[in-house]
Amino acid sequence: MANSLKDKIGSSDLVTLMSAHNPLSARLAEEAGFDGVWASGFELSAAYGVPDASLLSLTQHLDMTRAIVEQVAIPVIADIDTGYGNAINVLHVVAAYAAAGSAAVVMEDKLFPKDTSLLAGGRQELVRIEEFQGKIAAACEAGKAHDLLVIARTEALIADLGLDEALRRGMAYAEAGANLLLVHSRRKTPDEIVAFTERWRGPVPLVIVPTAYPDLTEAKVRALGKIKIVIYANHAIRAAVSAMREAFAQIRRDGGIHQVDKQIASVEDIFDLQRVPAMKAAEKKYLR
Amino acid sequence: MANSLKDKIGSSDLVTLMSAHNPLSARLAEEAGFDGVWASGFELSAAYGVPDASLLSLTQHLDMTRAIVEQVAIPVIADIDTGYGNAINVLHVVAAYAAAGSAAVVMEDKLFPKDTSLLAGGRQELVRIEEFQGKIAAACEAGKAHDLLVIARTEALIADLGLDEALRRGMAYAEAGANLLLVHSRRKTPDEIVAFTERWRGPVPLVIVPTAYPDLTEAKVRALGKIKIVIYANHAIRAAVSAMREAFAQIRRDGGIHQVDKQIASVEDIFDLQRVPAMKAAEKKYLR
Amino acid sequence: MANSLKDKIGSSDLVTLMSAHNPLSARLAEEAGFDGVWASGFELSAAYGVPDASLLSLTQHLDMTRAIVEQVAIPVIADIDTGYGNAINVLHVVAAYAAAGSAAVVMEDKLFPKDTSLLAGGRQELVRIEEFQGKIAAACEAGKAHDLLVIARTEALIADLGLDEALRRGMAYAEAGANLLLVHSRRKTPDEIVAFTERWRGPVPLVIVPTAYPDLTEAKVRALGKIKIVIYANHAIRAAVSAMREAFAQIRRDGGIHQVDKQIASVEDIFDLQRVPAMKAAEKKYLR
Amino acid sequence: MANSLKDKIGSSDLVTLMSAHNPLSARLAEEAGFDGVWASGFELSAAYGVPDASLLSLTQHLDMTRAIVEQVAIPVIADIDTGYGNAINVLHVVAAYAAAGSAAVVMEDKLFPKDTSLLAGGRQELVRIEEFQGKIAAACEAGKAHDLLVIARTEALIADLGLDEALRRGMAYAEAGANLLLVHSRRKTPDEIVAFTERWRGPVPLVIVPTAYPDLTEAKVRALGKIKIVIYANHAIRAAVSAMREAFAQIRRDGGIHQVDKQIASVEDIFDLQRVPAMKAAEKKYLR
Repeated sequence: MANSLKDKIGSSDLVTLMSAHNPLSARLAEEAGFDGVWASGFELSAAYGVPDASLLSLTQHLDMTRAIVEQVAIPVIADIDTGYGNAINVLHVVAAYAAAGSAAVVMEDKLFPKDTSLLAGGRQELVRIEEFQGKIAAACEAGKAHDLLVIARTEALIADLGLDEALRRGMAYAEAGANLLLVHSRRKTPDEIVAFTERWRGPVPLVIVPTAYPDLTEAKVRALGKIKIVIYANHAIRAAVSAMREAFAQIRRDGGIHQVDKQIASVEDIFDLQRVPAMKAAEKKYLR
Repeated sequence: MANSLKDKIGSSDLVTLMSAHNPLSARLAEEAGFDGVWASGFELSAAYGVPDASLLSLTQHLDMTRAIVEQVAIPVIADIDTGYGNAINVLHVVAAYAAAGSAAVVMEDKLFPKDTSLLAGGRQELVRIEEFQGKIAAACEAGKAHDLLVIARTEALIADLGLDEALRRGMAYAEAGANLLLVHSRRKTPDEIVAFTERWRGPVPLVIVPTAYPDLTEAKVRALGKIKIVIYANHAIRAAVSAMREAFAQIRRDGGIHQVDKQIASVEDIFDLQRVPAMKAAEKKYLR
Repeated sequence: MANSLKDKIGSSDLVTLMSAHNPLSARLAEEAGFDGVWASGFELSAAYGVPDASLLSLTQHLDMTRAIVEQVAIPVIADIDTGYGNAINVLHVVAAYAAAGSAAVVMEDKLFPKDTSLLAGGRQELVRIEEFQGKIAAACEAGKAHDLLVIARTEALIADLGLDEALRRGMAYAEAGANLLLVHSRRKTPDEIVAFTERWRGPVPLVIVPTAYPDLTEAKVRALGKIKIVIYANHAIRAAVSAMREAFAQIRRDGGIHQVDKQIASVEDIFDLQRVPAMKAAEKKYLR
Repeated sequence: MANSLKDKIGSSDLVTLMSAHNPLSARLAEEAGFDGVWASGFELSAAYGVPDASLLSLTQHLDMTRAIVEQVAIPVIADIDTGYGNAINVLHVVAAYAAAGSAAVVMEDKLFPKDTSLLAGGRQELVRIEEFQGKIAAACEAGKAHDLLVIARTEALIADLGLDEALRRGMAYAEAGANLLLVHSRRKTPDEIVAFTERWRGPVPLVIVPTAYPDLTEAKVRALGKIKIVIYANHAIRAAVSAMREAFAQIRRDGGIHQVDKQIASVEDIFDLQRVPAMKAAEKKYLR
């Protein structure tokens, strides 16, 4: 089966991904026109009410990724955090994500158990470069049969190790076989990422996650060149939280749903998103 | 362990529940002040992108219910649809929901596999009364050790069988041991539910789900008497869908997240909902 | 991806399958030289300690089937019982088994929830022929993209409906698109199956499960013709049970493991079955 | 709910546990008269066909433990390996095992991802003592509400660090709150364990796993004193493997099941283990 993400990267100047924490949010991302879905560890952890700190199990994230893949036609990139252990775990884990239909995995160079990247005062220790190269090589091996892309993610800037270390790690990861390099930053402005991009001379394109520096628009990213994928990594859950909070508060205030009912998606809208019309057509065909 | 839902029903004139499709939406419901959480089959089906037609497995709904129970302090009522089969299945299923910490289950008198109740033209066949009485008795038996409440739900009005049949079924279900009776209606006005409530002479209180007739406010429900629980059964996912749609469309329009970023919950808000501060406190205590 | 079961059926006079309840038993079946694995609902139910009566969820059986597929190279046939509901469920279910890598599914014409076939006094009601034809057509549609084989299983003989009804149903199922027909019998002798086979004029080959009539050897099956697959459907769990019982009793009797230790597989044997040597080789390559 | 393991330890001179990899093997252990079940990570890994090296996810082991707890009346001790990460993971993990009904957890002082203990040439690095004390304190905190016992396991002898280090670690773990201490050895004779036991002056009783040194019978263990629990940690899967191997080979040799059928547990035996008679009684009561 061809990897449609590969095709998109080849043919497009910039591929944009939206995060999802379940198949419904993924379907809304597809409907909105995003090129792919980011099966986000942060969003799924939040959906389960726990910190994004290696608390969800492999099974929980893998099962949700598979459920997402089954319900959208656009490619799904899986956030596998640190790979759930060492290179041996990575072999096992990446084979499972590939079999589940992921187009790519993103693996980061933090120690297991990780802490979430944007948290002030989080635990942000990195593994040795050689160790992570072994993990990348293992991921490439495990994904090969399914033509899976391996995206190495360096947290060197998150860990305050500086541009030189980030560039050095990026280069080492590309040498180990990574197909793309994700460089993450928690600065409030794009300067750090822009500087990294300008200095990047590696053989693979870049991926960014502009959560902390929202002013780096797609137009500016295109102008920079070298960056092939932008991941909007937490906006599905953030939008959902605001809206549920408001709707719940209003129902409490109103002592009923009479106001809220007109302000939110209708039950029929949800039926459509659940593909009820397709089920009704299938009932005609197969229920005898 | 005491069943806190029982206490609430005993001490309050009206208990209100908000639907949830994951622990996060349940936590927001708790935060907003609802008395309990409705572990909704409709919402979970929607979250998985499939029709609410007995397509999700017992495991999928049970696992999510358990995850919700673990993350909120208010009672959780589980929507077990038709009980996943006959009375033997019900014994197995209800024991599992009770062990998972549900305060109550709602079981409906439709045939398996069911179709969703509010769908125009849905398949709405009911099981025989005697058969459903056996299922209720089985549910009571299976939940006894955990002091679980069994809420029988009649779809007689959904199936257009009329008030008399709905009342007859309600009475039979109470006789079989149900602790409360949920009567469902898809009329756009409260008339049918009001008429049912006025004629109800059964020995157990009523539960309603006013999705289709939002004008029946809590004040009006209190005035009616007899109704002890109101379930807002799909407003979490409906609010989330609207908000994700809007946010996604705006990001596409803007070519970036610079506008959306200020309009939705912040990343720090999500950290708080994930209980990151409690984790940081635990790190000080236990990471040595 | 080519369906290797199809190739085996085409090239071999008789394909033999051994049941499995986990990847380990599947691997032992592969090691012994069987052509494929039967992901048995009966065995998995027994492994979970519950009757084979539609109590295990779709997720439990599907997850185990996927785990088995991942650990053996021979084709896996999934026992999907009645298809977990109506034709709409079948569409959903068979798509999932196909995506999980099953080479074929076997679906039976009993009512959901089913009772196990060999139980004296079990509930053995069949669905209408037209209804089951719709389910077969749905299964074929859902499995098409993965070249999945659909094996229809008639329980007409189990339900004591006689040879004529069994033949009529078999023919109707073949017309609806089934690739093979499994005919099941609980007679202690092969006479009933032999009679069915001799009278079978349908366009598809037969599958049998000779649990109740062990005297029908493979040599006799070959001589009969028409039968392409023999499934040994419960011998893995039965062998395991006897052996665990004996070992446990002896340990209790001996007040220790000193005798048993020499009589059962060694820890090193288990390491080999777990593919520890392959892991050690991978450690040398990837742990840096 | 009272913790029945605590009662057994208090009232018995020696508690014996048998390993299980599914509810069926647990039920056979109960039937044989063992005091409790060891929800073994090694056996479950083997059942899934993978090395016992932190490859199975928390969900896979936790779900199986819960399924076992639901099907036996004797206490279940869960093997949680290294606790799936640091002390924060332990808080999360142990709370889940306690909620699932485990009577105790065993947590070992190896680095995550671990390697299996009895493997010649395995990776056997230990965490710092202070770090493991934090993990023990976290486990005690998380299990408190369910009266769970925390058993600390030291792999100091497995890692060839000598008796003194093993004793030092054991003492430190008891000080951190562990209720019992498991000391593991891979010597072929009991000498090392005997020496450890004789020198042990800690305030908590010991637990041993005599796989490698089968000659240490229960009578000898009783004579040693101080040891309160003996775990037979892998004999269920080892017995099952031998038996399946033999049965499969014989079926292949015989070209049929006619011989094997008489040598293994009957289908009716399996029905009994599945509690089919209880289901039939429930059918009479609840199927109407």
